[in-house]
Amino acid sequence: MPASWLNRQLMFELLKKDTATEARLGLLTTAHGVIDTPVFMPVGTQASVKALDPRELDEMGTQVILGNTYHLYIRPGLDIITAGGGLHRFMNWSKPILTDSGGFQVFSLAKIRKIKAHGVEFRSHLDGSLLFLGPKESMEIQRVLGSDIAMVFDDCPPHTATAREVRAAVERTIRWAGECSVQPRAPGQLVFGIVQGGSHQALREECAKAITALGFDGYAIGGVSVGEPEPEMLQAIEYTTPLLPANQPRYAMGLGTPAQLVELVARGVDMFDCVLPTRVARNGTAFTRKGAISLKGGGYKADFGPIEEGCPCFACQRFTRAYLRHLLNVNEILGLRMLSVHNSHLFLDVMADMRGHIAAGTFAGFRREFIANYVPSRRVLAARKGVHPVDEERGEAS
Amino acid sequence: MPASWLNRQLMFELLKKDTATEARLGLLTTAHGVIDTPVFMPVGTQASVKALDPRELDEMGTQVILGNTYHLYIRPGLDIITAGGGLHRFMNWSKPILTDSGGFQVFSLAKIRKIKAHGVEFRSHLDGSLLFLGPKESMEIQRVLGSDIAMVFDDCPPHTATAREVRAAVERTIRWAGECSVQPRAPGQLVFGIVQGGSHQALREECAKAITALGFDGYAIGGVSVGEPEPEMLQAIEYTTPLLPANQPRYAMGLGTPAQLVELVARGVDMFDCVLPTRVARNGTAFTRKGAISLKGGGYKADFGPIEEGCPCFACQRFTRAYLRHLLNVNEILGLRMLSVHNSHLFLDVMADMRGHIAAGTFAGFRREFIANYVPSRRVLAARKGVHPVDEERGEAS
Repeated sequence: MPASWLNRQLMFELLKKDTATEARLGLLTTAHGVIDTPVFMPVGTQASVKALDPRELDEMGTQVILGNTYHLYIRPGLDIITAGGGLHRFMNWSKPILTDSGGFQVFSLAKIRKIKAHGVEFRSHLDGSLLFLGPKESMEIQRVLGSDIAMVFDDCPPHTATAREVRAAVERTIRWAGECSVQPRAPGQLVFGIVQGGSHQALREECAKAITALGFDGYAIGGVSVGEPEPEMLQAIEYTTPLLPANQPRYAMGLGTPAQLVELVARGVDMFDCVLPTRVARNGTAFTRKGAISLKGGGYKADFGPIEEGCPCFACQRFTRAYLRHLLNVNEILGLRMLSVHNSHLFLDVMADMRGHIAAGTFAGFRREFIANYVPSRRVLAARKGVHPVDEERGEAS
Repeated sequence: MPASWLNRQLMFELLKKDTATEARLGLLTTAHGVIDTPVFMPVGTQASVKALDPRELDEMGTQVILGNTYHLYIRPGLDIITAGGGLHRFMNWSKPILTDSGGFQVFSLAKIRKIKAHGVEFRSHLDGSLLFLGPKESMEIQRVLGSDIAMVFDDCPPHTATAREVRAAVERTIRWAGECSVQPRAPGQLVFGIVQGGSHQALREECAKAITALGFDGYAIGGVSVGEPEPEMLQAIEYTTPLLPANQPRYAMGLGTPAQLVELVARGVDMFDCVLPTRVARNGTAFTRKGAISLKGGGYKADFGPIEEGCPCFACQRFTRAYLRHLLNVNEILGLRMLSVHNSHLFLDVMADMRGHIAAGTFAGFRREFIANYVPSRRVLAARKGVHPVDEERGEAS
């Protein structure tokens, strides 16, 4: 077992555990700063959170962003990022960064692949060039990127995988996690293990046991947000969280809607990432605490209120629904920019609210009220599922 | 002759005239604020300066922006803008706005047209619906938009027009200017006349004489930036400026590159608008004081300097050429956003420099040095010409 860069008790401090739910309040210390958990991480796949600039991310209270190893490895490539002084300096982001391992993208985006003992041979989804990514390569790339939190290279099967395929993925994930755990790290870099196992409780247990035995700095639940129905996703989370060390951070990969974030925090998850806020923004959809709305709709054409009443975000403080609808309908970039600002702000704001309520001991009531007010949107859920097989902006590391 | 809303001497104050050139320093007072001239006006065709938000425009020193009557009339439509409290409130821009008259777009964008005595019947370039725009309609739309400066409805023929066609356009422009001059205005709204006449000195003279006799608050030189070679454009400006009242503002429509702005200020022009800074940004081109560069080029892939050394803009203070090149190459919106910021800032900054040098009596030297350092780009000039027949972002009022 490799030694962490500092005592694990200091790295993650569990400040409080909710009495009525599994929700937890914590502090995660990284090389680029301390993160209040539960936390939402905006996704910056290609070294940019889509449509947003670092000042906007700062202003909305972003604590940590996610970068994608697979995408950055292909473009701009490690030589450029190395010459630029690592990912933080390259993109001018001084707060923490979590990088995924590229495993998910290799299995979902790459054109042809050959799974070998120590990784995957595949062709770039861009130019077809032959590449190889395995535990060793992934950790080396993440070391060069200099992320604060690196993820192990895993095998994340789709929701349609057979039990036999999921078992093979679990075995591979465990073997590769062992290989990842002994690779060199960037100074102060944390490494998180990933638990696979799909919807199979026994496989989740087997995987969690083996992965936690390797002693990582935190643990992710992978193999969710891969096309499964919501109840199955929640079930997989419920199978897995009790198997993870209580005093270490837990990260549910690729999730979710605002209501799902609340439900997952209630189940003891501390960290989240999702492309939804920026992706649906580019489609003209705005999130509110009552659900998602499509601002392109004619019903908003003379609606001179803000996207969401009382919202302190840059967009809601300046622009009306009618104006934003106009911008969206004439394809002005400012429209999708402002929806990206509002949506990302809302996700971060809901997390801040949850932290406040866990601290105050009022989380259960907040959860009840939030879920009662929030109307899930089928369209939004479809947008999230749609990302799985081919979309470039998939932010998960699994 | 209609009375201006205030004494014309107060409305435009000529602070200084350069001794070595025709350059002028002035103050133009409008209902939404005082504008230092010479001034560059970023183009906000559809109630948004493409890719930029009002804070960014403020930070780069924008004094006045341009809106397009034709586009705003079609989308979102006057009912929405009226309900939203006028264009300033609709788009949340509290500084001055100049609106063009829609004439240029009717003659260049609209699908079918029939020129009548009191305007033009045309079909919307969007949905083919039958519309009519003339002096009366244009002024009414601009009154409802509530711009600080309205432009008269004119006939702007392309560079390929015959002398006979240009003569007809001049006659029409004069007649319509007369009709515009007696229409109701928004409170405090200024109205500028437009001089047409193409490259024909006699027609320029005839048009200038008739238009200035109508007594507008300022005068624009139209029929430039319509596909003509640069020497012809400069010649048309030189024909026209001496014919305009010295104590009123002069506006050259749709121009130009940074070097052209310097040359036009030297010829006594006070106001400019151009889509170049934001248009070429979306194409990956950055302006500098030494000319335009295409940041997509491989030569910048490991160039960790700013777009332009010493530039105080938001983009140059934060990002490197290598990072921006990466963003442009992977189609991240932040790339074109930051080039739009830098380019617009540069245009405004060159204007501020000119104002400083005119005030200090050092403009001739500045002009000489600027032109010596600036390498014109054929590609950029093509981008400007390319806008004439079909592009939606054409910002001119003529």
